[in-house]
Amino acid sequence: MVDAERVLANLDELRALTANEHGAQRVAWTPMWQRAREWFQTRLAELSAQTGAALEDHYDAAGNHWVTLAGASERALVVGSHLDSVPNGGWLDGCLGVLAGLEVLRHAAQVYGRRPPVTLKLVDWADEEGARFGRSLFGSAAFAGQATIAADRGRTDKDGVTLEAALAACGVAIGQIEQATVEQRNLAAYLELHIEQGPILERLGKPLAVVQGTKGVERWAITFRGQEAHSGSTPMEARRDALAAAAKLALEIRPIARSHPQAVATMGSVKTFPGIVTAVVGRCEVTLDMRDLDAGVLAQMLRQARAASERFARQEGCTVDWARIWSIEPIPFDPALIALCEEAIVETVGSCVRLPSGPLHDAAEVARLGIPTVMMFVQSLHGLSHNPAEDTRREDLQQAVKAFACLSEKTMEWMQRR
Amino acid sequence: MVDAERVLANLDELRALTANEHGAQRVAWTPMWQRAREWFQTRLAELSAQTGAALEDHYDAAGNHWVTLAGASERALVVGSHLDSVPNGGWLDGCLGVLAGLEVLRHAAQVYGRRPPVTLKLVDWADEEGARFGRSLFGSAAFAGQATIAADRGRTDKDGVTLEAALAACGVAIGQIEQATVEQRNLAAYLELHIEQGPILERLGKPLAVVQGTKGVERWAITFRGQEAHSGSTPMEARRDALAAAAKLALEIRPIARSHPQAVATMGSVKTFPGIVTAVVGRCEVTLDMRDLDAGVLAQMLRQARAASERFARQEGCTVDWARIWSIEPIPFDPALIALCEEAIVETVGSCVRLPSGPLHDAAEVARLGIPTVMMFVQSLHGLSHNPAEDTRREDLQQAVKAFACLSEKTMEWMQRR
Repeated sequence: MVDAERVLANLDELRALTANEHGAQRVAWTPMWQRAREWFQTRLAELSAQTGAALEDHYDAAGNHWVTLAGASERALVVGSHLDSVPNGGWLDGCLGVLAGLEVLRHAAQVYGRRPPVTLKLVDWADEEGARFGRSLFGSAAFAGQATIAADRGRTDKDGVTLEAALAACGVAIGQIEQATVEQRNLAAYLELHIEQGPILERLGKPLAVVQGTKGVERWAITFRGQEAHSGSTPMEARRDALAAAAKLALEIRPIARSHPQAVATMGSVKTFPGIVTAVVGRCEVTLDMRDLDAGVLAQMLRQARAASERFARQEGCTVDWARIWSIEPIPFDPALIALCEEAIVETVGSCVRLPSGPLHDAAEVARLGIPTVMMFVQSLHGLSHNPAEDTRREDLQQAVKAFACLSEKTMEWMQRR
Repeated sequence: MVDAERVLANLDELRALTANEHGAQRVAWTPMWQRAREWFQTRLAELSAQTGAALEDHYDAAGNHWVTLAGASERALVVGSHLDSVPNGGWLDGCLGVLAGLEVLRHAAQVYGRRPPVTLKLVDWADEEGARFGRSLFGSAAFAGQATIAADRGRTDKDGVTLEAALAACGVAIGQIEQATVEQRNLAAYLELHIEQGPILERLGKPLAVVQGTKGVERWAITFRGQEAHSGSTPMEARRDALAAAAKLALEIRPIARSHPQAVATMGSVKTFPGIVTAVVGRCEVTLDMRDLDAGVLAQMLRQARAASERFARQEGCTVDWARIWSIEPIPFDPALIALCEEAIVETVGSCVRLPSGPLHDAAEVARLGIPTVMMFVQSLHGLSHNPAEDTRREDLQQAVKAFACLSEKTMEWMQRR
């Protein structure tokens, strides 16, 4: 029997150990994160003691934690997620997937005795959030051969501590993180359970969704330049107001996104210069983040936003410059695993929703390698995440654990058929 | 003869002494400002030596510098402006009026011998700009009985130095600045020459304007509150985007101002929270500065902007709060002096423009006391001020000095007629 209640008890215990009154504090490469990982080791020891399973575990060159229950075949099914959180984070983001994965291992050990037909691995990715050093998907990217060591050497936290020093304090040598790619060997499938972190399932009244893939992201810094001028002495018609051009763009990105069913576009930051009450804004720096599951749609949105910004700059006597912050293509998940996930959800709760993921996840790095991958989402209350108010109904969490265990079994069978 | 060339030579000399490659650095209560004032003392000594005039001068309790050429009547005409500048400021803002005033004193001493029919005073107001401690019109407000000692004791500069300590270093006791009101005695009229600091005269192709008064100002901090949300997982229709409401207001204040011929409205600062590329803006703080010479128009604009902000907040699922930063009623100048100023300008350059002043000036504090006051503006190039690029054609400066001296003579005659 899958013991969903045990997963919930573990989540509660981890929350009590690693949260304060402001929320979860399991920020990667900090003592609180290490405490969470030490506690997780005690959960592994308990599993071994209760089931007699021989678990091997180790930390790879990038700090990812791998737990292996060897099977008759070396080909491995990997389940996992991440124990790290943002500062003042929630109790479910990441750790739900790790602790549900632990239950999958326990269940397999019980069902198959000590030796399941295929090898089962559980991974706790290092620093999914990038909360302290601004590099999200740190561990899974290194695993996938996407490490960015040169850039990483220059990263510091807000106190000036280097990423390199923070890694070293956790036993990770920054120059060697690329060696985490050796963990790719024999991996045949990857499954990840995660909270939705958005409001769609709650709006639909559904507990679970199969994730079709992660949306592509276009992330840009846009600077409008007009003319700083005295707010008292400069007539309205003589102004070259950089804020006015930016405000038009802030409103225009919304119809651009709304013309596609799953697209989003966000202006998250606006900075005004000189930014004082008595001056017309001479320079306005904004950020734009656009996402869609379809690469063609995303490219079209980017063209539309860019053309609109140039039109608004002209109207306001300003110039505009675009600088790319970061982008990633859409990463679709595996059609066969999507079908299995849908089956597992329907069998567990009667119906299933298909959703793209707006946020990125470690699963995207795995899928990029061509390893068949799928994710399952469980409903978030009020769409909140990265926030101490992050929550999910306990009955939905129980159904999620059951459906995820069901998916794992279906995936092991699918691996044996291939 | 009025020697306009000498005023220009003095302006050049002061610039050479107190500017660096980034512009004028005569920030009040700093050594460079004191150097400007010491240099000005040498100009007074030169005037006395050349004309034989017996000048009395002293610093009042708020640090304003008063120079008196005693006349047959104790009733005094005051001319003046301020020597202090913003950091990286221009060569004309403030010091033009002080040095033109010096020429008015010299000319009177020459024309009338040592004893003009009325007393003439020249004032160099202390800290008009408020650049270092955020309190503009410091000296003239104290003179006018508008000192804000309790608030002033709490003021610090960006390095944490208190205003109180900075004043003390210049020999001013913060607790006694109210005593500057004794300088009001016998003052019968106040005249100030200043650069326009805006683009209107340049656009009209006119060198000089009479100033009708200073516009009233409504200055507010406005906070829109929506819901911070993940930029990737929150569908467009589920957002409560505080930036969207603020952007609508940034655009709507423009037609509100444009429906009145001389009104202006400016959103100078926008701050977004959390202000990161991956989050829908949950809170947006903006500033609004609105000005008009007509109190009724200004009140109407404020009502319209407020109603618009509430409408936009509702549309976006946000709330909005308004907090007054500061306001001042419109201060009209004296009709008789406005007429004299217009005459002087027409006689000097053939035609005259009437303008309100958008920026505040020390003249507003004097006018509030009921002392007949008027200002004269000379054209600014490109509307720039508070900027090292601030400039005015030398021939326009010469005409300004001549017209201002003419206005001073007309005002002395007017005082004798009253």
